[in-house]
Amino acid sequence: MILGLDIGGTNIKAGVVNAGKIVRRYRFPTRAHQRQAAVEQIKRVVDRFAGRISAVGIGCAGIIDSEKGIVRYSPNFAGWENVELGPILARDFNKPVRVINDVNAIMLGEWKYGAARGYDNAFLFTLGTGVGGAAVVEGKLLFGACGFAGEFGHTTIDFKGPRCACGNRGCLERYVGSRHIVDLARRLIRNERSALRAYGALSPRIIAREARRGDRVARAVFDRIGTYIGIGVSSIVNLLDPEIVIVSGGIARAGAILFDPVRRTVDQLILGATFRDLKIIPAKLGDDAGVLGAAAWAAEKSVRKR
Amino acid sequence: MILGLDIGGTNIKAGVVNAGKIVRRYRFPTRAHQRQAAVEQIKRVVDRFAGRISAVGIGCAGIIDSEKGIVRYSPNFAGWENVELGPILARDFNKPVRVINDVNAIMLGEWKYGAARGYDNAFLFTLGTGVGGAAVVEGKLLFGACGFAGEFGHTTIDFKGPRCACGNRGCLERYVGSRHIVDLARRLIRNERSALRAYGALSPRIIAREARRGDRVARAVFDRIGTYIGIGVSSIVNLLDPEIVIVSGGIARAGAILFDPVRRTVDQLILGATFRDLKIIPAKLGDDAGVLGAAAWAAEKSVRKR
Repeated sequence: MILGLDIGGTNIKAGVVNAGKIVRRYRFPTRAHQRQAAVEQIKRVVDRFAGRISAVGIGCAGIIDSEKGIVRYSPNFAGWENVELGPILARDFNKPVRVINDVNAIMLGEWKYGAARGYDNAFLFTLGTGVGGAAVVEGKLLFGACGFAGEFGHTTIDFKGPRCACGNRGCLERYVGSRHIVDLARRLIRNERSALRAYGALSPRIIAREARRGDRVARAVFDRIGTYIGIGVSSIVNLLDPEIVIVSGGIARAGAILFDPVRRTVDQLILGATFRDLKIIPAKLGDDAGVLGAAAWAAEKSVRKR
Repeated sequence: MILGLDIGGTNIKAGVVNAGKIVRRYRFPTRAHQRQAAVEQIKRVVDRFAGRISAVGIGCAGIIDSEKGIVRYSPNFAGWENVELGPILARDFNKPVRVINDVNAIMLGEWKYGAARGYDNAFLFTLGTGVGGAAVVEGKLLFGACGFAGEFGHTTIDFKGPRCACGNRGCLERYVGSRHIVDLARRLIRNERSALRAYGALSPRIIAREARRGDRVARAVFDRIGTYIGIGVSSIVNLLDPEIVIVSGGIARAGAILFDPVRRTVDQLILGATFRDLKIIPAKLGDDAGVLGAAAWAAEKSVRKR
C-alpha cells in the first residue's frame, strides 16, 4: 500500500493505492498561506496513514528536484523555496517519500493506467486556472535539466499579444486559462444575445453547458479557445511528434465543442499530417491521475533504491 | 572505417570516418532533380569507398524511418516517397547502411564530439534557408512517433503573422529563414542610410559583416531576428528544459550581434530563469557535424545489430 498525495493550492487529495488502484480517497485543506503550516498539514495527513503504508508519493506544483525530493519553488505555497519535503517526511516517518511535479504525476498516472497507456511518445496538458504540460518521450517521462520541462502554458502564440501574468506577451495561458475564457465570454455577450447573460457569474463549466445547448456566443467562445489550444498543440506536435495528446482538467470534459476546433486546427497546422496518426483525446482518470501517478513514482523509485 | 554522408539538395558531403574523426572529406553534386538519378548518384558515391569501409551512415532531410532506413518523404528530392534507401544500398554493397534525419545527424555529431558533448538535455537548431531542430532528451536522441520530431522552424510565434511557405501564419522560419532576413534588410534600407545599399544582392553573410562593422540598419536586422529566435527558443526551453541550446548553420558564426539579442530575449521570456543555468552557444563542428553524426548512427546501429 502506497499513499499518493496530490497537493494543490486549496486541497490535498490523498489516496491509498494498491497495485495501481485507489482503495480509499480523502481530501484535506492545504493551509497554503504559510510555509510551516502547509508542511505541518502534509505531515498530519501522512501521519493518519503511516501505519498502513510502505511509501509516500507526492505530486506538487512547481519546480521539483525529483531525485532529492526537494521543492525548489512552488507557486502554490507562500515562501516555499528549497523545501526538503521528501527528506523531512522520510525522516519523520521512516519510509521512502518521493516528490514529483503535479503535472508529471498526472502524466505518469495516465501513462501507466489511463489514456496514455502503451505509448512511447505522448503529451498531456491540463486546462484550469493555469495551463500545465508534461511529456513522455522515447519511452521516458520528461523532466528536463532542472525538472522544469513541460511548461506548455507559457508557449508564445503571439509575441505581439496581450500581457500574461508571467510578464510576457501572448502566452497560450493568457488565452485559455479559466479566467481568460470567462473574460472572452463577457466581452462577446456585451454586443450579442446569449443565454450567458442570465448568469451572475460565469465559469468555463457554465459556458460549456450553454455551448452544448446551442448558445451561439458560448459556442464561439469554445471555437476560439479550441483554435488557440490547437495552435499551441501544433507547435508541440511539430516538436515532439507524439502519437497521442491528452487533454486533462475540468474543461477536457466539454466534449466535441472543445475537441472539434482543437483537432481541426491541429490537422491544418501540423507538418506532414498525412504521415501521422495523431490522437487527441480527453484524459481518463480525472482527479485520480495525480494521486495514482504520485504513488507510482514512489513505488518505482523505492524499488530502484533497494 | 565508416562512410558518413550528408545529402543536401545541392551537394552530398562525404567523409571517411575513423573513431569519430573525419579522415578524408569529399563533395559531390546530388542530382536531386529526379528520383532515380539521385539514388544512382548516392550509389556511385558509396561505390567509390566500398572497398575501405565497414558501414555507411546517411543523413538526409525529411521524414526518415531510422529503424528501417526508409526515406518516407524528403523535401530535397523530387518524387521521394518511401524510398528504401538503406535496404537498397545494403543489398548492393553487402554492408550495413543506416539512414537518419539530417538535423538529427548534426545533433548526434555535436552531441558525441562537439558542443553538446556530455549533456543529457540539449536542443540544437539550424539556421539557413529553412530552420530545423533536434533534441536530446533525458539522454536520448529524440525521434518521436514518426521520426518527425524537432520541427522547430514551424513553431507559431504569431498566429496572426505573415503566411509561411507551409501554409500557416507566423512560423518562426517565416521571420528568420535566410530569404526573410534579406527581405527584412531590403525593407529597412528603403528609408534609412546604410552600407547595405551598396550591394547588388544581399545575403545574411553580407548583412552580418556590415552589422559587425557597425552599420545601424544591419544591426537592427540582427536585433530583430535575434529577438524572434529568442521567442522561439524560449518556448522550447519552457517545454524541454535543456541545459544547452546550440545554434548551427552559417549565421551561427555571426557572433555577438546574433547571440546577444537571442540571450537577452530568452533571459526575459523563460520561466524561472534564476533556477536555470542555460547555455546558448554556437555549434562547434560546422559542416562536419552531419557527416560525423551519420557515421556515428551507422556505428551505433551496426553494433546493436550484431
